[in-house]
Amino acid sequence: MKDVDEIFMKRALSLAKRAVGRTCPNPLVGAVIVKNGVVIGEGYHKKASMPHAEIEAMNSVANKEDLKGATMYVNLEPCNHFGRTPPCSLAIERSGIRRVVIGMLDLNKEAAGGASYLKSKGIEIKTGVLEDESRKLNEIFIENIANKKPFFVMKAAMLLNGSIAVKGGVSKWITSEKALRFSHRLRGIYDAVGVGINTIIMDDPLLTCRVGNYKQPKRIVFDMNLRIPISSSIFGKYLNNVYIVTSEFSDGAKKRVLKAMNINLIECDVKNGEFEPESLCRNLLEKDVCSCVIEGGSRTHGYFIKHNLYNKAYLFYAPKISGSYGAFNVVGSDAPVNLSGVSRLRNIDCKMVGEDILVEGYF
Amino acid sequence: MKDVDEIFMKRALSLAKRAVGRTCPNPLVGAVIVKNGVVIGEGYHKKASMPHAEIEAMNSVANKEDLKGATMYVNLEPCNHFGRTPPCSLAIERSGIRRVVIGMLDLNKEAAGGASYLKSKGIEIKTGVLEDESRKLNEIFIENIANKKPFFVMKAAMLLNGSIAVKGGVSKWITSEKALRFSHRLRGIYDAVGVGINTIIMDDPLLTCRVGNYKQPKRIVFDMNLRIPISSSIFGKYLNNVYIVTSEFSDGAKKRVLKAMNINLIECDVKNGEFEPESLCRNLLEKDVCSCVIEGGSRTHGYFIKHNLYNKAYLFYAPKISGSYGAFNVVGSDAPVNLSGVSRLRNIDCKMVGEDILVEGYF
Repeated sequence: MKDVDEIFMKRALSLAKRAVGRTCPNPLVGAVIVKNGVVIGEGYHKKASMPHAEIEAMNSVANKEDLKGATMYVNLEPCNHFGRTPPCSLAIERSGIRRVVIGMLDLNKEAAGGASYLKSKGIEIKTGVLEDESRKLNEIFIENIANKKPFFVMKAAMLLNGSIAVKGGVSKWITSEKALRFSHRLRGIYDAVGVGINTIIMDDPLLTCRVGNYKQPKRIVFDMNLRIPISSSIFGKYLNNVYIVTSEFSDGAKKRVLKAMNINLIECDVKNGEFEPESLCRNLLEKDVCSCVIEGGSRTHGYFIKHNLYNKAYLFYAPKISGSYGAFNVVGSDAPVNLSGVSRLRNIDCKMVGEDILVEGYF
Repeated sequence: MKDVDEIFMKRALSLAKRAVGRTCPNPLVGAVIVKNGVVIGEGYHKKASMPHAEIEAMNSVANKEDLKGATMYVNLEPCNHFGRTPPCSLAIERSGIRRVVIGMLDLNKEAAGGASYLKSKGIEIKTGVLEDESRKLNEIFIENIANKKPFFVMKAAMLLNGSIAVKGGVSKWITSEKALRFSHRLRGIYDAVGVGINTIIMDDPLLTCRVGNYKQPKRIVFDMNLRIPISSSIFGKYLNNVYIVTSEFSDGAKKRVLKAMNINLIECDVKNGEFEPESLCRNLLEKDVCSCVIEGGSRTHGYFIKHNLYNKAYLFYAPKISGSYGAFNVVGSDAPVNLSGVSRLRNIDCKMVGEDILVEGYF
């Protein structure tokens, strides 16, 4: 039965993927209902506050009698609690479904327990089918739950020696058109894009997603002292998705101006002259920033590397190299005093994207 | 006829390759003699002062009568001058060979002219067959002749952000065993390996080739003020292939000690506190350093990048990243003030070597 179970679980995973970037703070879940080897129902969780995948799949079956004796495939354990919606475990039990195949158990203690509940009701449960794929699909959700922080993605474009700008800070368009389009897709896939205030001042980016049919990301500026110019391009469009992360103590008058412009202000704790990481993570999660691509600059990457906040990296290297003295390095923080202080990446891979090199990996 | 010509030229190229790293200052040349569609003779140039490929191929034919009416395939134009050996053009003419197919013409004005000589004697000449491959095979020779300098290869191992060492200069073993073996092969393939004096003082490397069945490279240390410790490991073995590049004005007493140890000293002109590039190139070519892998460190790569001396790069990236402040960047020289001052690489490619990333490209 193993192969058959994997085939239907793959289908569940691919259904789940349709909602990539749209379910935050919920996980990506797909469900498939199979009877006598035939798919009779399918569904996926489209968005927080919309029905869960299991319910969508059961609803897709016209004659509810058909559910009796069927098998459900779902990549995440059915929930067992009354959240925004009633527990899926109860609905499954009542449907007459006889067997439930699960990709991974839920780490969210509040929602978990569906598997053991259903088992206690005599329903056959199989867990861990395509578990690695299931975990990978919900890596953002897992990070949110397990480490109580957004899934942070490092994105940078640099020269082969790590410089992100030449002298004086000129850094735009280091990489090619193709790499640029890839970066825009990242903005569409993850919930948010974040940059440091120096990048806003030097490059004045829009930070919008300008390729394909993606949602617009939340746009976050890390700006402790509220130095952001009111004339910044980021304020040109979609004002309500701009978030300025600042401190309690920055300029009150400017805060009032920004609030009047409908800009979201997030006040974070400050410690040793930088944002206190736990406070930063908690505040962003509260604003439903489950994942965030950090686009730099140097100091901002330095902060995230220093505090081990990154989960994944997309590093673009232009086929160019130059002297480093006076240039900004991609990671603007102190070097460790020995190699054990260096951050290591795993599952690393490289490929050409146009004329640039893309290195991907997990921290 | 095109395809058939290419097939035999490929054979000539693959014969030529057998002598990689051994022919300096001569080019890599292979020759194939074909009659009625059958290979009747083959040869390649094994080493300077040994016979040229054309002669080797003709010598391999037992019955010299067979040469009459045959076709010769050779990846480089046959020489037309009395060098260490008599001109191949004359020998070919006398052999009765009727047709000569050539990969690329010789750039070396002294030796060139074989094609037009043979044509004037009524022998059919075809040039430019697999010319790109022929030029690639002899990229070192071409650089030596065309630009009067060694073919310089940048080799570096670094973190993903371009740091080659953490604070205090600890840099050994950044990359994995597999990348290390690759680097040793480079030492075997190119004529020489070169490092700056700071690398000698900090890492005390042997710079020998310690894999496979390769020749030992010449080992070059760029040491303007002759700071090299007499106890350096580089002096442990193969003393006669150590070359210290220094200035006319460095410590005379130390020079005498080194000479007494059989170490080769190369005195180069100094300008603005660094070696004058033309003098450096001329001096190295005179010592039959046709190609040289530069392994760093930071300042040395900085010098070669600044003066546009590099021809090729092998850049290894460990799957690691860290803050850059206080670390050595792979290119220790001034950043340019705008992007047009950045060195560009072409024909770039990337692949995994063990757990590290290798980026290859040409300047």
